[in-house]
Amino acid sequence: MIHVRNSWHVACWSMDLAVGQPFGITMANDPVVIFRTESGNLVALEDRCVHRLAPLSLGRCEGESLRCMYHGLRFAADGACVEIPGQDIIPAAAKVRAYPVVERHSWIWVWLGDPALADESLIPQAVGLDDPDYILGHGQLDYAAQAQLIHDNLCDFTHLAFVHPASFGATEEWATTRPRITQLPRAVRFERWVREQSRGHWGGELVDAWSSYEYHVPGILLMQTASYAAGTADMLNDAAPTPDLPRTGVTFTSQAVTALTDSTSRYFFSWGPHRDHGDEALRDTLMGVAGMAFAEDKTMIEAQQRVIDLDPSRRVMPATFDKGVVLYQRLVERLAREEGLEAAA
Amino acid sequence: MIHVRNSWHVACWSMDLAVGQPFGITMANDPVVIFRTESGNLVALEDRCVHRLAPLSLGRCEGESLRCMYHGLRFAADGACVEIPGQDIIPAAAKVRAYPVVERHSWIWVWLGDPALADESLIPQAVGLDDPDYILGHGQLDYAAQAQLIHDNLCDFTHLAFVHPASFGATEEWATTRPRITQLPRAVRFERWVREQSRGHWGGELVDAWSSYEYHVPGILLMQTASYAAGTADMLNDAAPTPDLPRTGVTFTSQAVTALTDSTSRYFFSWGPHRDHGDEALRDTLMGVAGMAFAEDKTMIEAQQRVIDLDPSRRVMPATFDKGVVLYQRLVERLAREEGLEAAA
Amino acid sequence: MIHVRNSWHVACWSMDLAVGQPFGITMANDPVVIFRTESGNLVALEDRCVHRLAPLSLGRCEGESLRCMYHGLRFAADGACVEIPGQDIIPAAAKVRAYPVVERHSWIWVWLGDPALADESLIPQAVGLDDPDYILGHGQLDYAAQAQLIHDNLCDFTHLAFVHPASFGATEEWATTRPRITQLPRAVRFERWVREQSRGHWGGELVDAWSSYEYHVPGILLMQTASYAAGTADMLNDAAPTPDLPRTGVTFTSQAVTALTDSTSRYFFSWGPHRDHGDEALRDTLMGVAGMAFAEDKTMIEAQQRVIDLDPSRRVMPATFDKGVVLYQRLVERLAREEGLEAAA
Repeated sequence: MIHVRNSWHVACWSMDLAVGQPFGITMANDPVVIFRTESGNLVALEDRCVHRLAPLSLGRCEGESLRCMYHGLRFAADGACVEIPGQDIIPAAAKVRAYPVVERHSWIWVWLGDPALADESLIPQAVGLDDPDYILGHGQLDYAAQAQLIHDNLCDFTHLAFVHPASFGATEEWATTRPRITQLPRAVRFERWVREQSRGHWGGELVDAWSSYEYHVPGILLMQTASYAAGTADMLNDAAPTPDLPRTGVTFTSQAVTALTDSTSRYFFSWGPHRDHGDEALRDTLMGVAGMAFAEDKTMIEAQQRVIDLDPSRRVMPATFDKGVVLYQRLVERLAREEGLEAAA
Repeated sequence: MIHVRNSWHVACWSMDLAVGQPFGITMANDPVVIFRTESGNLVALEDRCVHRLAPLSLGRCEGESLRCMYHGLRFAADGACVEIPGQDIIPAAAKVRAYPVVERHSWIWVWLGDPALADESLIPQAVGLDDPDYILGHGQLDYAAQAQLIHDNLCDFTHLAFVHPASFGATEEWATTRPRITQLPRAVRFERWVREQSRGHWGGELVDAWSSYEYHVPGILLMQTASYAAGTADMLNDAAPTPDLPRTGVTFTSQAVTALTDSTSRYFFSWGPHRDHGDEALRDTLMGVAGMAFAEDKTMIEAQQRVIDLDPSRRVMPATFDKGVVLYQRLVERLAREEGLEAAA
Repeated sequence: MIHVRNSWHVACWSMDLAVGQPFGITMANDPVVIFRTESGNLVALEDRCVHRLAPLSLGRCEGESLRCMYHGLRFAADGACVEIPGQDIIPAAAKVRAYPVVERHSWIWVWLGDPALADESLIPQAVGLDDPDYILGHGQLDYAAQAQLIHDNLCDFTHLAFVHPASFGATEEWATTRPRITQLPRAVRFERWVREQSRGHWGGELVDAWSSYEYHVPGILLMQTASYAAGTADMLNDAAPTPDLPRTGVTFTSQAVTALTDSTSRYFFSWGPHRDHGDEALRDTLMGVAGMAFAEDKTMIEAQQRVIDLDPSRRVMPATFDKGVVLYQRLVERLAREEGLEAAA
């Protein structure tokens, strides 16, 4: 399992991290503890005391520091041990790793790689729960599956036609037409029209939907879906809609796939209508749909993982609609390879 | 763990396989999906889509074919992929393995080895639930144990005296006398008299029981038990009973042990009286007895597996009553070896 | 994981071993069955029948012997097979291992190493539940953690200040002062004053507590705690109290850590007041405190094990207060090494 460490990984929702409550999570096999200090700083440290390897996430926040509650060693925000009870000299090696950590768009992001390379401008432009333009619900799911299978799922919406006809009301067109795919420096972009979709939750008449999303390393999906009068896709000859065209509905979803270990993952998501095209009731309807749809994905992907585990030597056979999957995998492989070269240099 | 692939393995009960409902089971480490087509044909395929290794058993039956419900690839009864949504060309390699499969004696049998060698005449003569001569109940159990431990158990009824005195009312004679054992081409036959058995469910007086069964590769037990007036065994000097001797009771049990993986197994069984010697009430009594007895076996065998797992290097020490166990193991080893030679030739 | 086999390991409480009821337990990866014979002898055997490796702990006690209830082999107290049903000749190799076993201080102790070296004088002087001087409660806990982590915990009471402030009412002094530590031939002794402890369950005023315990191979903690008037520690200049000094409270706890496997453990404990300093009500209060405190340890140690399992290559960084931990670990390593030399000689 390849992990792009030099990227921002989502650890949790902002509001799930209370002041003074250390939060432990395994990220790409690293034990990480995150906490807010008394002064409001955000700190992410290796969740493993230097002394006897106890988890600091069972510890106590004290001012700007975190104390291991096994034998009382205390660590500053930079990871340095600053107190060993009853011991005057603190060895220079008494230090846990500190991770760059940022709170943005309602998520806590951790940079798992070289801290010198941590660049906040690389944080994808997710829509936070407090965004004034959208009315968003949110949730999360744990997977007994490697993160890559979820990346694959999200980089190929062909599966909507087969996995999600009931929940999303997806038609066969998701499988028979192809999106326009664009390689970006750290993401893959997918754009397409889907004709005569049932608007489902928006109302009775059929619409043409313009689905446009980016899938960013290390697993961040950002998607706006806008609906237009039926016939618009034909009229535009499948070109992207111009801003002047009247829209009958707009939603936005931000999703993050975090590899916990090589075989387990956590999936965070928000979704909801633009304020001009919906209200809290529509948001709640969409969250019900998402709950159903993401359970359909989880059932399929965890079953896929079990089949793979029976014989891990089996190879996949990419189809033409796997272009996005393959581009994203190559992007991940290239970035991971470059990390290795940098680390070796 | 040795598996005789060139043999018929029981996958499930006939009536548990509804038309249009794909059924997934792991057989000797192979993921297998079985379904009935619209026209009533029975099909068994590799339960692993060529595309991204999703299980076809989560798929949808369509006419004579099975569609993967992850990305919509469709497979014909011979395993060939016949449709990839939105893709014109189907690679020749897009094929899952197809297994010979037969419905007989109320079981679905799958040939896991070379299809060219699949010979229906090798299916053991089990008694189906619809047999006009018997009134049968049935059930199944999953084991957290390798199949070989269950084969060993069923090829040596010495254990009846110790594991099943309460359930089967078995006496010490099961341990102190030995069956006549005959090696057959693909089975081992066991025959013996057990004197002065309590008839238990048949009534109060003691009987002599003639127990005769065959244990067929890959784990099929077929046993008729007939009871006679006490003294018959002595009178016949332990020879097999002749057809003219009046019988006071007759039952038949068919059992199948299927290796799911190298460490888990499924056990199928039916049992009941001959129509001339019992009714539904007796069948229900026997099923209660079987439920108790097979739980006794499961407790012992799963505990045995845990002891073995603590130190897998420990060797068994066969006793004289293990003749049938050893003959069956050698038969399995020989057939597996011959498979290897054929495959290499 | 290192096990000192040439030592007495606690298998269970005396009263949990009823006559005629074989008891199975895995000790340092060995399956062991213990039973009391009809004449009252105590027997410990390998819990694995020579025949097909079934556990003898599912067997039946018969007089002075134990019968395997799979196929009826019977074993004498020395481990020799003395009966194989229906078989005249018993191979000389038909023998399971017999372990020296002793009942003392309310525990059943098993010597896992060379029987020729089993020396009852090496059994640590635990206080049994029937001791006339103490009023004791008792309990036990299973750990999903290797025994060494529990040994480490018990050889360093610094953790009381952080893990047990609520349950034991432990103050920071446990972390800031150090015990006097003495290496014994098969144990490490810890002695210290803790000043102005809340007496908690004894009453309102503060006391000085003299805590004195030994930690014996393979994991036996024996501790007396006596309280004195506040100021006594200062008056004695931290020397051990003399017998003439009036004590305001005395308790005793005996604890045993048994490695089940390399990754699981069982923890036995008793605790209670001296008869001159308490009653059944105080014992019950102490057991409530122990229940809370030992759950605090278990939470921390099992979490520590999970962190270790994420990356077993990580090394600990001993602190100055780890002197006892290190002395005990070196003692264990030395004894295990000597066992290896003896076995090789």
